[in-house]
Amino acid sequence: MTLGTPKQFTRSYGLDEIALVPSSVTLDPDIVDISTTIAGLKLEIPIFASSMDSVVNPKTAVLMGKLGAQGVLNLEGVQTRYEDPSDVLKQIAEVSKKDYVSLMQSIYQEHPVREDLVISRITEIKSHGVTAIVSSTPQIAQWLGPIAAKAGADAYLIQSTVISTHFKTNKQDKILNLADFCKAMPIPVMAGNTATYSVTLELLKTGIQGLFVGIGPGAACTTRGVIGVGVPMATSIVNAASARDDYYRSEGVYIPIVADGGIVNSGDICKALACGADAVMIGSPLAKANEAPGLGFHWGMATPNAILPRGARIEVGTIGSLDEILCGPSKTDDGSQNLSGAIRTCMATVGAQNIQEMHQIEVIVAPSLLTEGKIYQKAQSLGMYKKS
Amino acid sequence: MTLGTPKQFTRSYGLDEIALVPSSVTLDPDIVDISTTIAGLKLEIPIFASSMDSVVNPKTAVLMGKLGAQGVLNLEGVQTRYEDPSDVLKQIAEVSKKDYVSLMQSIYQEHPVREDLVISRITEIKSHGVTAIVSSTPQIAQWLGPIAAKAGADAYLIQSTVISTHFKTNKQDKILNLADFCKAMPIPVMAGNTATYSVTLELLKTGIQGLFVGIGPGAACTTRGVIGVGVPMATSIVNAASARDDYYRSEGVYIPIVADGGIVNSGDICKALACGADAVMIGSPLAKANEAPGLGFHWGMATPNAILPRGARIEVGTIGSLDEILCGPSKTDDGSQNLSGAIRTCMATVGAQNIQEMHQIEVIVAPSLLTEGKIYQKAQSLGMYKKS
Amino acid sequence: MTLGTPKQFTRSYGLDEIALVPSSVTLDPDIVDISTTIAGLKLEIPIFASSMDSVVNPKTAVLMGKLGAQGVLNLEGVQTRYEDPSDVLKQIAEVSKKDYVSLMQSIYQEHPVREDLVISRITEIKSHGVTAIVSSTPQIAQWLGPIAAKAGADAYLIQSTVISTHFKTNKQDKILNLADFCKAMPIPVMAGNTATYSVTLELLKTGIQGLFVGIGPGAACTTRGVIGVGVPMATSIVNAASARDDYYRSEGVYIPIVADGGIVNSGDICKALACGADAVMIGSPLAKANEAPGLGFHWGMATPNAILPRGARIEVGTIGSLDEILCGPSKTDDGSQNLSGAIRTCMATVGAQNIQEMHQIEVIVAPSLLTEGKIYQKAQSLGMYKKS
Amino acid sequence: MTLGTPKQFTRSYGLDEIALVPSSVTLDPDIVDISTTIAGLKLEIPIFASSMDSVVNPKTAVLMGKLGAQGVLNLEGVQTRYEDPSDVLKQIAEVSKKDYVSLMQSIYQEHPVREDLVISRITEIKSHGVTAIVSSTPQIAQWLGPIAAKAGADAYLIQSTVISTHFKTNKQDKILNLADFCKAMPIPVMAGNTATYSVTLELLKTGIQGLFVGIGPGAACTTRGVIGVGVPMATSIVNAASARDDYYRSEGVYIPIVADGGIVNSGDICKALACGADAVMIGSPLAKANEAPGLGFHWGMATPNAILPRGARIEVGTIGSLDEILCGPSKTDDGSQNLSGAIRTCMATVGAQNIQEMHQIEVIVAPSLLTEGKIYQKAQSLGMYKKS
Repeated sequence: MTLGTPKQFTRSYGLDEIALVPSSVTLDPDIVDISTTIAGLKLEIPIFASSMDSVVNPKTAVLMGKLGAQGVLNLEGVQTRYEDPSDVLKQIAEVSKKDYVSLMQSIYQEHPVREDLVISRITEIKSHGVTAIVSSTPQIAQWLGPIAAKAGADAYLIQSTVISTHFKTNKQDKILNLADFCKAMPIPVMAGNTATYSVTLELLKTGIQGLFVGIGPGAACTTRGVIGVGVPMATSIVNAASARDDYYRSEGVYIPIVADGGIVNSGDICKALACGADAVMIGSPLAKANEAPGLGFHWGMATPNAILPRGARIEVGTIGSLDEILCGPSKTDDGSQNLSGAIRTCMATVGAQNIQEMHQIEVIVAPSLLTEGKIYQKAQSLGMYKKS
Repeated sequence: MTLGTPKQFTRSYGLDEIALVPSSVTLDPDIVDISTTIAGLKLEIPIFASSMDSVVNPKTAVLMGKLGAQGVLNLEGVQTRYEDPSDVLKQIAEVSKKDYVSLMQSIYQEHPVREDLVISRITEIKSHGVTAIVSSTPQIAQWLGPIAAKAGADAYLIQSTVISTHFKTNKQDKILNLADFCKAMPIPVMAGNTATYSVTLELLKTGIQGLFVGIGPGAACTTRGVIGVGVPMATSIVNAASARDDYYRSEGVYIPIVADGGIVNSGDICKALACGADAVMIGSPLAKANEAPGLGFHWGMATPNAILPRGARIEVGTIGSLDEILCGPSKTDDGSQNLSGAIRTCMATVGAQNIQEMHQIEVIVAPSLLTEGKIYQKAQSLGMYKKS
Repeated sequence: MTLGTPKQFTRSYGLDEIALVPSSVTLDPDIVDISTTIAGLKLEIPIFASSMDSVVNPKTAVLMGKLGAQGVLNLEGVQTRYEDPSDVLKQIAEVSKKDYVSLMQSIYQEHPVREDLVISRITEIKSHGVTAIVSSTPQIAQWLGPIAAKAGADAYLIQSTVISTHFKTNKQDKILNLADFCKAMPIPVMAGNTATYSVTLELLKTGIQGLFVGIGPGAACTTRGVIGVGVPMATSIVNAASARDDYYRSEGVYIPIVADGGIVNSGDICKALACGADAVMIGSPLAKANEAPGLGFHWGMATPNAILPRGARIEVGTIGSLDEILCGPSKTDDGSQNLSGAIRTCMATVGAQNIQEMHQIEVIVAPSLLTEGKIYQKAQSLGMYKKS
Repeated sequence: MTLGTPKQFTRSYGLDEIALVPSSVTLDPDIVDISTTIAGLKLEIPIFASSMDSVVNPKTAVLMGKLGAQGVLNLEGVQTRYEDPSDVLKQIAEVSKKDYVSLMQSIYQEHPVREDLVISRITEIKSHGVTAIVSSTPQIAQWLGPIAAKAGADAYLIQSTVISTHFKTNKQDKILNLADFCKAMPIPVMAGNTATYSVTLELLKTGIQGLFVGIGPGAACTTRGVIGVGVPMATSIVNAASARDDYYRSEGVYIPIVADGGIVNSGDICKALACGADAVMIGSPLAKANEAPGLGFHWGMATPNAILPRGARIEVGTIGSLDEILCGPSKTDDGSQNLSGAIRTCMATVGAQNIQEMHQIEVIVAPSLLTEGKIYQKAQSLGMYKKS
């Protein structure tokens, strides 16, 4: 019998617990370069839109691209199951909370992914002259990967709640070998999600050209409540960035990492970059766009799971155009608009001229504990307490 | 005069403060084995139902057994005091908060435990071909233990808020010697509750075949408020598991431990197993079953205490059948349904093929502090704030 | 110029952050001795009632004494300013929140302390055959101390928000020399409040026979908000207990310490004793008694300060008789009733046969953080959230 | 490529997390000296009013000066853009939350700063015989600095969210060289804001005579949410005070530091001084004055930013005259009135005879976590919970 070692309770940190410390330099925002390059593709704004039905359809993927950011289209969502997904998206937005999970389960079970729709969605994005990145789970990547590449996709993202290079099963035909897949694919492959140093290092050796980081930290994700698994984002990024840097030191190849999940405002994006991320992937901040397919709602990808649904549907509302959210000018003061402007202002403020310099900015633990003052203040701003 | 040593403030941890970290392996859920063996009895699902009146009666004990889990019947509750306890259970559910403690005190004082009912309840469970485990406090075990064994019980659980091997009193006739009791009983004996390494080690030497761990962490338990005593669950399990492993190393006997108390959803169960538990005992998650005797309410065992009642009554509501709660499929995304599926998914996700491997999974401290973002999110999900 | 040393941020702990850990022994409650002896006076229950107008008048002082506990009468409150204080107590209970501070200020400014009332209040208490302990601030002790002793008081408590042996002023006639006062007084003198090791040690050398510990932790005390001063109670007790034990080791004299402030339920009392207190002084838990002079309200002593009032008035309600609160039986499960029974049960549970053994019980840091689960649970019990 | 070092998560502390510990001396408040000298100007009360439109206009600057404190007039706010700013201040107070940011942006964009108004505002303040201190951002200081000095200002404060001695831009004509500016200005120059040891040390070498400390901690400041930047105030002060003391040790020049931001009551002021501040700058506590130009509202300076507005408008109400707030007597017990009296009482309580001694007082970490007890207490005081 193998016994476990007595548990050590090591502290981990979320983005809402940290803050950035200015360096001895400040910069004119005009000389700050916020661009990043991942899988050989340059992004003027280091932001990916999550491959979720509430965020990315061909239309918003094109918009994101034209603005200098990057949408990722989920090849297993409603876009590739329905010729015209507008009705089903409306149903999701309007269903009662009670019937939500059942609806999602039935939608997915009754409408399989269609190869023709995979091809037409990618063709549609490419016809507007922007980069097309698509994603699927590992199970389905062997089928859809070659189809997507042939249809013109520029990169393929394999995404799983938790990815590893060692997947054990008793059904040998099912396994995706990530190294083989990277070799076979004519376009760059990215993968995720991971949260630790050792798994990151193993994944970097497979030939992927980008790694998505983040397990269980997101707003539309209940992984931690349902299965207890999750690593707070700041710690996840630091873990993965250490592996990326060590891999670069030993192999001379720099494979960028993308912080994915639990990023709710522009402050979080800045913190993720300072922790070591080369870009971020965000869902709920973009689900609030007027153009977002979620119609003011946001939901996770694990919900349709027939056996163990996870991921709540949240009403996020709409706050402005995708252009305003990404490029401003901002009409609010809560970090929800002008995300690229906030990144630029932050980097100027702390003295980082590009993303590489941003990785060197000092971070501190500065818990946003709900002290008495804060709850009172928050309460007021929410109109939440009524004095008797 | 013996002086105390200056207090050291050592930090302890609750299950809601920790999270599990994936290993470098992931598994097909189909090859995960979630079964456990305690006191020689195999459980397909590593879950005990708490020996509480709101959770276990003969009917739910049978249901639990048929589903692969295990109910424990409290021999000192209403089931052995009333021929037909349905009326009194209804009264408990309907009494006002103000009159609740008084009602509980009068119920227990006016209706003593009846030997004939002890026998008939056990007989009823056994007649359905499932394992019968019963429990009592140490005081009453010497009387009821032999009766229960004779009636066909498969194991006996001696349960006390805090158990020790050294009980001091000036009434020598009252003491239960645990080692003697284990020797005398023809069926396996389990005991609890404990929270520290040293007491666990002493108890393991008495001949018990299972140990219940957890002092004062439960939702229906106010021990910590009333008498200041309590050890958060994650720390309790790690303490007890260390003693269990050391005992196994020195004696070659593996005595399983069961995490009991303060476990509110499937995520908590997964965390308890990763901390080192061989199984869990849960109350409130099962009190929500349609079949639960508590009729949508859940309450603790210390309430009827005539002098110092502890344990509040909580309205938990009903959310589905016991089958749905234990085996799914889940219709919610909050960790309240398909508990066994969640355990299986968790173990597949973190790469643990059986409970022994689960004990080796890394845990981190990842406080679920109510940060501003979380309270807002929580507020929305509860429909609790009204924007002005 | 003397420069400050760079600040070290040392963590301190409050009672609500700690919990008690059972030892390897459990006890029959019948053999537990909860009595304590302070200033040569034996208390069957180790509880002082705070010298506050909302808690102690001659009537409740007598009641406390007959129950085995000890009231302390404030010689500077309404009892010694008004022949019949019942009207003014009613005014305090009924005044609006807005006018509360002004009322308190005017009451104190217009009605000086009367020597005749000091004498008659003490005489009244003594006439019932119970111990009489009275208190004042240092300023007034030189005047009232001899009067109180002559009137029959058994001990005198000098109480100040913060007491020290070195008081600097430019009005030399005003200073109270504590050592001289102790020598001059024919009855035992106790003093407070303190929170650190070094000040405690200095005070123990003055001849006092009891020391009250606690600066700024109390529910009716806003010292920390108004002047930033305060030491959480668990740390204060541990600091003072270390000094007491060191003084006993070097001088052979054991001078008991009393934890005073911020103790809101029976669990807190148990924790204070385990941290090293020989007794506790409590206000709000006793202000809830039917007999309490505060008529369901509780307020601090610093409120009438003409320049910088501190201490809020809190509506605590009434929950039962003083007898029920101190000696039970309890009809609630929240630690508000049967305080002595809770102490006894706690000590039996953790295996401490007397207060000295209680000082040796292990304490852990077990923060009662408001995690999501707890706020939901708390919310339910308060009926605070309304689901939309 | 330069790689970042793996992040260390160092803990920082806010003022609401710390408390002051009494020393072995207590003082008669009458012998406490709370005065401070900054930039050669003596303040009887160590409090600056924030250079914000909601707090300081010529009238309140004069009032502050007459009371012994010091207002700082923002030369870029409404006072120097409008001949009569009363209408626009009324609009700001009355605009809906939705239209607030747009209004602020339009006000600033349509009404440039007028040199004649800069001169007349300063003249107005000086005509009442009090010290006049004015402020601007670095960009505009080269233009307004000489004008202000000529108009009679006694000191000039250059204030930026984050200031550094190394500002990089590709527009060389724009840069303010702080050392050159200090040399050129005929009046003392102060600067801010900073939060770290190294930047403080660099700034102290430029010739400034006072340094403002605090980045992103304030109530009307959302810098941390929008760009992730911020250092909790207690840590910021300790960092800067260490640099100030080291500079004094090596150069023999003592340059005072002022804690600016996030100070909400008198307790916070006392803590800031004990952490090492020579004075504080406060906004919201003074915005509550009857005479405050904000008419019961308070807002930040970064709001009018056309691209990335930060800083919320908060309704703070009015609680009394500026005289009552600064000098009392207090009619409340929440640390909002008699700020100077609270400082004096605090220093007497902890045994600090002047600000230098105050820097040597012990501080501890004593988190004001919202424990169950505190939320209940808070709830009651807010009348926020309704029992069912």
